[in-house]
Amino acid sequence: MITVWNEHVVEGRKPEAARHYPEGMHATIASALGGLGSPVTTATLAQPDHGLPPDVLDATDVLLWWGHSAHDDVSDDVVSRVCERVLEGMGLVALHSAHYSKPFRRLMGTHCMLRWRIAGERETVWTVAPGHPIAAGLPGSFVIPEQEMYGEPFEVPPPEALVFLSGFAGGDVFRSGCCWTRGRGRIFYFSPGHETYPVYHQAEVRRVLVNAVRWAQPSGDR
Amino acid sequence: MITVWNEHVVEGRKPEAARHYPEGMHATIASALGGLGSPVTTATLAQPDHGLPPDVLDATDVLLWWGHSAHDDVSDDVVSRVCERVLEGMGLVALHSAHYSKPFRRLMGTHCMLRWRIAGERETVWTVAPGHPIAAGLPGSFVIPEQEMYGEPFEVPPPEALVFLSGFAGGDVFRSGCCWTRGRGRIFYFSPGHETYPVYHQAEVRRVLVNAVRWAQPSGDR
Amino acid sequence: MITVWNEHVVEGRKPEAARHYPEGMHATIASALGGLGSPVTTATLAQPDHGLPPDVLDATDVLLWWGHSAHDDVSDDVVSRVCERVLEGMGLVALHSAHYSKPFRRLMGTHCMLRWRIAGERETVWTVAPGHPIAAGLPGSFVIPEQEMYGEPFEVPPPEALVFLSGFAGGDVFRSGCCWTRGRGRIFYFSPGHETYPVYHQAEVRRVLVNAVRWAQPSGDR
Amino acid sequence: MITVWNEHVVEGRKPEAARHYPEGMHATIASALGGLGSPVTTATLAQPDHGLPPDVLDATDVLLWWGHSAHDDVSDDVVSRVCERVLEGMGLVALHSAHYSKPFRRLMGTHCMLRWRIAGERETVWTVAPGHPIAAGLPGSFVIPEQEMYGEPFEVPPPEALVFLSGFAGGDVFRSGCCWTRGRGRIFYFSPGHETYPVYHQAEVRRVLVNAVRWAQPSGDR
Repeated sequence: MITVWNEHVVEGRKPEAARHYPEGMHATIASALGGLGSPVTTATLAQPDHGLPPDVLDATDVLLWWGHSAHDDVSDDVVSRVCERVLEGMGLVALHSAHYSKPFRRLMGTHCMLRWRIAGERETVWTVAPGHPIAAGLPGSFVIPEQEMYGEPFEVPPPEALVFLSGFAGGDVFRSGCCWTRGRGRIFYFSPGHETYPVYHQAEVRRVLVNAVRWAQPSGDR
Repeated sequence: MITVWNEHVVEGRKPEAARHYPEGMHATIASALGGLGSPVTTATLAQPDHGLPPDVLDATDVLLWWGHSAHDDVSDDVVSRVCERVLEGMGLVALHSAHYSKPFRRLMGTHCMLRWRIAGERETVWTVAPGHPIAAGLPGSFVIPEQEMYGEPFEVPPPEALVFLSGFAGGDVFRSGCCWTRGRGRIFYFSPGHETYPVYHQAEVRRVLVNAVRWAQPSGDR
Repeated sequence: MITVWNEHVVEGRKPEAARHYPEGMHATIASALGGLGSPVTTATLAQPDHGLPPDVLDATDVLLWWGHSAHDDVSDDVVSRVCERVLEGMGLVALHSAHYSKPFRRLMGTHCMLRWRIAGERETVWTVAPGHPIAAGLPGSFVIPEQEMYGEPFEVPPPEALVFLSGFAGGDVFRSGCCWTRGRGRIFYFSPGHETYPVYHQAEVRRVLVNAVRWAQPSGDR
Repeated sequence: MITVWNEHVVEGRKPEAARHYPEGMHATIASALGGLGSPVTTATLAQPDHGLPPDVLDATDVLLWWGHSAHDDVSDDVVSRVCERVLEGMGLVALHSAHYSKPFRRLMGTHCMLRWRIAGERETVWTVAPGHPIAAGLPGSFVIPEQEMYGEPFEVPPPEALVFLSGFAGGDVFRSGCCWTRGRGRIFYFSPGHETYPVYHQAEVRRVLVNAVRWAQPSGDR
């Protein structure tokens, strides 16, 4: 099972977010993942256990995580369960501002800070590992017309594989697609995706989500 | 298409090799790969172009390479074509003494020397990356009852992923399952496999071969 | 300043530990580091703030950590300060059973479990990165006559550099010398060093300690 | 001994190169390295053995290489000797268009192609590994006012450490400071440095050269 988690807070506060993601960002992200042959479900902060009780996590092969303004409201118990499941083999795909979420930071062991600027900038995403499964079917580069700038230094452990690099009009650069393993679990961070831009509706971004989920699935006995 | 290349020389010279691999090591290796959904073919040194003319290489998704006593007889033209195809995306699985084959050494950029001792030693293969696709379905460790010892120092670039480590009765250790990328191509080296022992008949080793071929396949547009 | 931290508990409980390390393991470890041109100090669990108040940590360039039976007695405040200092650039050299210490585990983001067996086994330490500064002046391999066996699987993130591999008489293997970075800080884990054997008196081990401290020092403005 | 190799061809053909580097680029590069406590010498293509006979290479601890328009004129014998010395422990610092030099390509095992555009663009160099010795004393980012654009995809094996990333006004990005090891030798590639701009006179670039040489020195018995 694939589970898309979203704090689902900013959509109610920002008109652009509501316009681009009327049913929540989790709904738009989940809609990209229908063709993978696994059931896709969603979960949000306001649900009991944030929608992630033990039985849901136990059944989840890959968890996608989007959070931004409510990181501190996520309970430490849920965070511990998520991290345990990753160590056991569950994949984790951390999206955009999830760089600062509790589970991602705990698994990285660092603060995971970065520089940012909301200026509707043009982001060019470059594939630097063209043979990596997460780059399958993607061009050498693609453009996201308007984005929040995320820039280096990005305080994470050196990624085990660097798949994408982004450049911004202002000369900023960012390691926008990074892979790590923790225990038996595979972790992918992908930075594009601010709530006030229709990033998750863009075909190339949706292809990255599909590839990332496929890559992060536990190998198990397949 | 999966292509298994074997110099096919030692089987005619050593009775134990002939006994364990009466149709050649390539036949035994190829027999492990039937369930992958791709046609499997074999090629040997004595064939024109060593069985690897351009159309065969162009059609090959993953090439497995076994060579030992005839490395120098492989033509540089064929070596160049193999290396080019790897850079374009063909996977390469180098087996046992192929650590010293011309294509592997050229792609590594080092001599790829190691220490060795033929003493029928017990080799224990440990999985050190349990979440890696090449370890799928394998136990934490398995034993090869009799093996040629391959020991550190192994003069290769640091692997991008280390999947297996081997220990020998004599206290020697070896990085026995190593991953690299070169261009768009994925390379896996797996050290078990001396010709005078029935290593390629062992279930765990055959599972590694299957996993390695699956991992090394080009991502293309899948 | 170089600070050697030791829980200093086992020396009072085990006669062999007291015999090999009559002044505490920290004293023996510190005695290896006199030639580095930095002052060397020690700290232990029983001291206020475990001997690591903010001013000591702020002045420490490299912290060596030995702990075994009292990991849980280390206060979370001290652990947080140690981790913060590593992210700011302080080097950390984690020794033997410190694989399971709170600071190391938090910085790794995993449980850091391993297999172990106390049987006075012969450990052979192999240098697999001969050009790495931590291997400077060391032979291709050296033997520790009696050791506690530490074996794979070792549940840590893949090291950024693997310097040493160990083999044991029983066929067990271990990644015994591993490097990581977290923030601006460099971390080295070295597994030899059980308290009931005179490991820290052995010349090769002392050379590793010297090299590791030199490597882990912050680059600063040098 | 530190040896700076330069093909020394473009300085005679391009007025800007002659203006910025009247005594040759090797002279300017060498002038940055005087404070390291090692003798610094230079060598050029036109000298016998390109200035790199066996006794010079044997005495060289770190070789810096600048080449652009005469890669093919470097004899394969000299290339082989350089590569052998790297495997034995000599450091190699490949500068700018040396990405396409024979020794660098042979050691990498790939074509090492990249995209480029000569348009006097502003390059911002970002430090992404702030704790790495090659970043010592450098700011979080610095600007080279006019540069040739070097852009991804850069067809090299994934670097073992990525120290610098560059962004260009046009949205292009590049892994501008990369580390690898081959055998006992350490290799650093640094992309800034086109001959028609005064890049090697800039203080930050000269600091990178100093740090890189210090990092690449063989550990030996120090």
